[in-house]
Amino acid sequence: MIQMTLIQIDNYGPWTVTPKPRTESDLQILQAELFADVQRQIAAKKGLVFFTRFDNLLAVTNGLNEEDHMRIQRSIRNRYPVTISMGVGAAETAHEAQRLATIALQEKGGAQSGRKEILAINNLIENPEDSFVQAAHIDINSVTETLTDIESAFDTSFMVNKAQHYLMTKLREKGALLFFIGGDNFMSPCNGLNEEDLTKILIDIKEEIGIGLKAGIGRADNIEDAAYMADIGLEIIREGNNKEWIHLIEELQ
Amino acid sequence: MIQMTLIQIDNYGPWTVTPKPRTESDLQILQAELFADVQRQIAAKKGLVFFTRFDNLLAVTNGLNEEDHMRIQRSIRNRYPVTISMGVGAAETAHEAQRLATIALQEKGGAQSGRKEILAINNLIENPEDSFVQAAHIDINSVTETLTDIESAFDTSFMVNKAQHYLMTKLREKGALLFFIGGDNFMSPCNGLNEEDLTKILIDIKEEIGIGLKAGIGRADNIEDAAYMADIGLEIIREGNNKEWIHLIEELQ
Amino acid sequence: MIQMTLIQIDNYGPWTVTPKPRTESDLQILQAELFADVQRQIAAKKGLVFFTRFDNLLAVTNGLNEEDHMRIQRSIRNRYPVTISMGVGAAETAHEAQRLATIALQEKGGAQSGRKEILAINNLIENPEDSFVQAAHIDINSVTETLTDIESAFDTSFMVNKAQHYLMTKLREKGALLFFIGGDNFMSPCNGLNEEDLTKILIDIKEEIGIGLKAGIGRADNIEDAAYMADIGLEIIREGNNKEWIHLIEELQ
Amino acid sequence: MIQMTLIQIDNYGPWTVTPKPRTESDLQILQAELFADVQRQIAAKKGLVFFTRFDNLLAVTNGLNEEDHMRIQRSIRNRYPVTISMGVGAAETAHEAQRLATIALQEKGGAQSGRKEILAINNLIENPEDSFVQAAHIDINSVTETLTDIESAFDTSFMVNKAQHYLMTKLREKGALLFFIGGDNFMSPCNGLNEEDLTKILIDIKEEIGIGLKAGIGRADNIEDAAYMADIGLEIIREGNNKEWIHLIEELQ
Repeated sequence: MIQMTLIQIDNYGPWTVTPKPRTESDLQILQAELFADVQRQIAAKKGLVFFTRFDNLLAVTNGLNEEDHMRIQRSIRNRYPVTISMGVGAAETAHEAQRLATIALQEKGGAQSGRKEILAINNLIENPEDSFVQAAHIDINSVTETLTDIESAFDTSFMVNKAQHYLMTKLREKGALLFFIGGDNFMSPCNGLNEEDLTKILIDIKEEIGIGLKAGIGRADNIEDAAYMADIGLEIIREGNNKEWIHLIEELQ
Repeated sequence: MIQMTLIQIDNYGPWTVTPKPRTESDLQILQAELFADVQRQIAAKKGLVFFTRFDNLLAVTNGLNEEDHMRIQRSIRNRYPVTISMGVGAAETAHEAQRLATIALQEKGGAQSGRKEILAINNLIENPEDSFVQAAHIDINSVTETLTDIESAFDTSFMVNKAQHYLMTKLREKGALLFFIGGDNFMSPCNGLNEEDLTKILIDIKEEIGIGLKAGIGRADNIEDAAYMADIGLEIIREGNNKEWIHLIEELQ
Repeated sequence: MIQMTLIQIDNYGPWTVTPKPRTESDLQILQAELFADVQRQIAAKKGLVFFTRFDNLLAVTNGLNEEDHMRIQRSIRNRYPVTISMGVGAAETAHEAQRLATIALQEKGGAQSGRKEILAINNLIENPEDSFVQAAHIDINSVTETLTDIESAFDTSFMVNKAQHYLMTKLREKGALLFFIGGDNFMSPCNGLNEEDLTKILIDIKEEIGIGLKAGIGRADNIEDAAYMADIGLEIIREGNNKEWIHLIEELQ
Repeated sequence: MIQMTLIQIDNYGPWTVTPKPRTESDLQILQAELFADVQRQIAAKKGLVFFTRFDNLLAVTNGLNEEDHMRIQRSIRNRYPVTISMGVGAAETAHEAQRLATIALQEKGGAQSGRKEILAINNLIENPEDSFVQAAHIDINSVTETLTDIESAFDTSFMVNKAQHYLMTKLREKGALLFFIGGDNFMSPCNGLNEEDLTKILIDIKEEIGIGLKAGIGRADNIEDAAYMADIGLEIIREGNNKEWIHLIEELQ
C-alpha cells in the first residue's frame, strides 16, 4: 500500500488579500519556503512532498506516523503566519490514497471554513510489511539539445507543460499520479501500473505530440528508495542512448 | 518596454546525477530555496521571478541594472553548490523580451557546455520613462466551492493544470506569457495585449473546457505595482460576483 | 548519559577568503541558514543544536543514531557549497561528552587539513534506558524593564554577554556547558549538576556583577522534553515574582 | 556619519510562551531565518546586520532610506508569525548612532507594550557625501592551531567568548561596537577610533588574557565595502605572519 498526505494551508486565499492584497513576491517566497520546509521534515522519514498547487501539497508518506504529522503542523504554526491542516490515506493506488486523504480532510470542513490545523486520518499503514511504493521518474529525451539550447525559455517551458498535461491525463486514468519536479522531470507515484501500460502511454504521447519520453521505475517500501532506483533506471536508459522506453529496478546491487 | 531575465542553473542536469543520483528531496529543497532566494533579491528592486522550470527561471526585471544582476550571481555562488547564468532582454512584448534574453545566453554556449556564471545582456531599459509593465492576474471562479472542497486534491490540480495549458497556448499566440503562481492563480506579463483579446481568450476557455476564469489587469513602470493593481482589479470583480471577465486598473487612488 | 555531536564546516576559514574574501553578508546568511537547517533535521529526532561559533556547532543528540548523522551530512553536501564533518561522544557530563566528540574528530585530522565529511564516533548511547539529559534554561530577571527599554541596544547586549561570560566560566568548572539562545536566554546542558551548585552560581553572579538570574531545570531522556520542562520551571518562577532562584521539573502532569 | 538601525521583534518574549512554551528548536530556526532574511534584504543596499541578541538586531544601514526600511517590515509581516519594529539613528560614532536609534524606538513604547511594526527614525543620512563607515575585522591569530585542533569545541568557544567580552568592554569605551560574526571573527563598526587606540586595545588584551588578535580596518561610504577592505587588510597581516597588529585599507587598487 502507498500512504499519501494532503497538506493544505488553512484559509489561505482570504489571508492573501487581508487586509489588502499582499505583495506577490512575498507570497511566492512564503509558498516556496513552506514547501521546502515541509519537504525537509517529511524527507527526514524518507517521504517526499510535491509542490502541487503550493497551497495544497501532496506527499507520499509511507513511514510517517500520526506523531510525525503533528510535529510538522506544530513546527509550521511556530514559524509561519499561517497554519496547515492534513488529511492522510493509504490504498493500493496513489490516486485512491490521495482521494481518501482529501475526503478525510474535506469532512472536517471546507478549506475556507475557518477549520484550523486539523489532522484528519482516514487510515495509516500500520504494518511495515504492507508498505510499498512504485515510483516512475520520467523525463524528456535530450531536452537540452532539442529545447533548452534552441527554443526560447518560455517556449521550452510550454512544451514541458504540454508533456505534463498529456502525462497527467493518461496516468490518471490508470490510478497513477504525475507531478512536475523541475527541469524536464516528472515523478509518478504509480503503484499497480504495469510496465506495458506505462510503455504504451509514452509511445502514444510520442505519436500525439512528438515529445520523446523515457521512464525509470523503482520499487521499495518508501518513496525515497523507490525514487532513487527510478533514477538509476533512467541513467541506464541514457547510457543505452534512450533505446529503452522504460527500465525497472527492484533492488540495488 | 518590458525587461525580462532568464536565470539558468549552470550544468544542472549532470550535477544532479554526479557522482550518483542525488536524493530527490534535497533537489526539491535546493530548487525551492534558490527560487525563493533569487525572488527576495529581485523583489528588492520591485521585480518578480516565476519558478518556470526551477532550473530555468524567468523574471520581469524592469528596474534592475547590470550590477543588480551581478550581485545576485555572486550571492548564489557564495551560498549554493551551483552557479547561475543570466540572459537579459527588453522589448515591446514579454515573449519577445524573454526570447532576446534566451538568445543572448544561448549564444554564450549551451546549458551543459561548461559555461559558468555568464551574464549575457541583449539590452536593458536605459531610460526609466521607457519602463512599462502590463500584468494580468488570472484565477478560477469559485475554485474552493467547485473544486478544492469537492474533488480530490490531485483532480483539482489536474483541472488547474488544464486551465494553465489552455491559457499558455492562447496567450502565447498574442505575445504574452503565462505562469502558474500557486493555488488557482496565474500571472501573465502581457504588454500589448488589449482587453478585447484577453476577454475573448477567457470566454473561449469557458466554452472549450468549462472552466470560468477572470482577470485583473494592472499597468505600471514595474511588475510589483502592476501586479498589485491587477490584484485590486480581481478583488473588484469578486465583489461584483464575477460578472466581469476582466477589470483594468491603471492607477491607484 | 548525554550524547553530544560536534558539527564542523570542513576547511571553512580558507574557503571564506578564496579566491578573495567573500561578501560578509553572504557568509552571515550561509552560517545562519546552515544552522537553521541542521537544527530542523536534528530536531526531527528531538535533538537540539546550539549555534556556538557557527562554523563549529555543538548539539545534544540523544536519540540520533549513526544513519541519522550521515543523512544530515548528505543533505548539506547536496545543498551547500561546503561540507560538514561530525564527531560524536556520550558521557555522564555534557562537557565530557563534547570533549570526547571533539577528540574523535580531531584524531581524523585538523579542521583545515583537507579532511572532508568525516563522521567520527567515539561512542553512541546504545541502550535507550541510558539516555538522560538535564537542561537548565536560564534568563535575566525583568530584562525588558531593567535593560531593553532603558539602555541602548548595544549596552543591553553587552550586559547579556557579560552574564554569559560569567555563567560559562562557573558552569564549565562543574562540567556543564552554557549556550546563548537569544534575547536574555541561556541554555545549559548540565547532567550531574545539583540544585545547590546551580543556585550558588546564580547567587555569586548576582553579587559579583549585579545581574539577577533564574533557572528552570528539566530532566528527560531527550533534550527537547528536558528543555520544555525547564521552560515550565521558568514560567513557575515568573509567576512567583522571581522569588525562587531555580525550579526543577522532572515530569509533566 | 554612520547610520544604524535597531530591529526589534515586537512583543517576542510573551509570544514565545503563549499559549505555552514553544519548542526551542522552532524558536532557534525562526530566529536564525529571520536574521538571514533581514540580512539578505539589507545587504541588497550594501548594509550589514549583526545577530546581536536575535530578538534585537543591530545593523549598519548607510545607504538605506525610509522606504527601504518599510519594505523590510512589510516582507517580514507577510512571511513570519511575528512583526518587527525599527529605530534609526545616524551619528559620528557607531555607539551614538545605535543609542539614538534605540531611544527613538523606546520613545514609541516598550518592547512588550503592544507597540507593533513601528518605524522610529531619529535621523537618516540625507547627503550621500556625509556617509562614512569605518569597520575593523578582528580575528584570533592561528586559532585553528592553538585552539580548534587541540582544545575541546566548548573550551574553544569559551576562549572566543572571553576575547569577545574583553573587546566589547574596551571598544565600547571608545564609542565603537563589537559583534561576533562566527568562528574566531569579530566585526567592529568604529568610526572615529584611531589606529593607535585600536592597537593599544589589542596589545592590552594580549597581555591580560594571552589571546593574540589582529585587525584589518576598512573605510568606505558603506559597510559592505568597508568590511571588504578590512578583510583585505587582515589577509595582508596574515601574509606577513601576523607581525602587524592592524592594517588599514582606505581604497582598493
